[in-house]
Amino acid sequence: METGEFGQHISQQFNDELEDIRNRVLTMGGLVEKQLADAINSMVEGDTELAESVVANDHRVNGMEVSIDEECSRVLARRQPAAGDLRLVVAVIKTITDLERIGDQAERVARFSLRLAENSHHGYFKELEHLAEDVRQILNDALDAFARMDTEAALEVARSDISIDQEYDSIMRQLITFMMEDPRNVTRVLDVMWTARALERIGDHAKNICEYVIYLVKGKDVRHISIDKMEEAVNPDAGS
Amino acid sequence: METGEFGQHISQQFNDELEDIRNRVLTMGGLVEKQLADAINSMVEGDTELAESVVANDHRVNGMEVSIDEECSRVLARRQPAAGDLRLVVAVIKTITDLERIGDQAERVARFSLRLAENSHHGYFKELEHLAEDVRQILNDALDAFARMDTEAALEVARSDISIDQEYDSIMRQLITFMMEDPRNVTRVLDVMWTARALERIGDHAKNICEYVIYLVKGKDVRHISIDKMEEAVNPDAGS
Repeated sequence: METGEFGQHISQQFNDELEDIRNRVLTMGGLVEKQLADAINSMVEGDTELAESVVANDHRVNGMEVSIDEECSRVLARRQPAAGDLRLVVAVIKTITDLERIGDQAERVARFSLRLAENSHHGYFKELEHLAEDVRQILNDALDAFARMDTEAALEVARSDISIDQEYDSIMRQLITFMMEDPRNVTRVLDVMWTARALERIGDHAKNICEYVIYLVKGKDVRHISIDKMEEAVNPDAGS
Repeated sequence: METGEFGQHISQQFNDELEDIRNRVLTMGGLVEKQLADAINSMVEGDTELAESVVANDHRVNGMEVSIDEECSRVLARRQPAAGDLRLVVAVIKTITDLERIGDQAERVARFSLRLAENSHHGYFKELEHLAEDVRQILNDALDAFARMDTEAALEVARSDISIDQEYDSIMRQLITFMMEDPRNVTRVLDVMWTARALERIGDHAKNICEYVIYLVKGKDVRHISIDKMEEAVNPDAGS
């Protein structure tokens, strides 16, 4: 009986460790979401203090990446996880890389909003508000899909990323027109373009996270394939 | 004796597997280097066929990422590596993500050179040739540092990335001037800017790979720290 209890204890502790890693990823995700929301608000409101706090807090995102990575290596070495547990750890290692890069892009957005506030030109950001809202939503949905291990929600994120890319393209076309109309605006419009690009990249990273969720749950690697093939991987019998 | 031989056999096979993973990363690195060299040449020469071949071959880079990832998961599950072996596998998982993104950026460069060749305007690329050469070199050096597990070479790559960033900033300033001088060039100059940005990003990814080399050899995570701190991590006694 004691051996059994010991076995259960070990296994329970292992479960706790995996649960702890998952929770830490969600905490990191929450911080990254807040960084993005603050960056967007600083841009919309021209709030330089808020923008500065985003820049100042990026190191916290980086620190979380490093410490979760360490924890993953420790679990791999000590617990030698297999199957789904192993996929969880591998998916976490990849997810936190994308979260860290989302944090970097949020910091970029904050830096641009600082520069644009300097020139009291945050009016330009009107074009970006809708894109920013969509990007904030896709990150929220990606983290939700991760928290609930929900492959349908993950698929939905991949679909949303396509419309974010289209929105980005249309904003870029519009900004190019602005530039041609008034070359004195080149520098400012460029800053808006870089901000749009940073937002678009966040969409890509959110999509990456959802690909890891599908890998984790279904054991299938769905990177680099079309949305149709992704749907097939998630619902193999839906088409028959 | 038989057990001993079996043990050795297992261990030898394990070594072969790790060596195989390392070799596959280097093969993937070689392909990515070729993609970048072809993309740069297509841009400098205005060679659309070469640019098209880069776009067509990107899927091979993606395929390598997926298959090396699978092999890493298999080794983690079967061999339960510890210490340096585990760090190798984790470093490989991260390295191939960066290699795949370098491949994406090379594809971007090729796509822009297609667009610029259409407008017979590859003359604009003069500004980029030097940056492109430096980026090609830093990727080569990063892969070399990985192949030889050379932390000094890895540090050198991190230093080079700083000068690539400075070069990029100066090119951007120059391109902004071009744009303001002649707003009819906005679209073309923007393409050159995006190309410069893609090249600069490749430098960042090369630096990431070198950080994994230092992690692998020294067991120290040197991401998100200054170059001075990186030097301390690699040569802890140098300052004393």
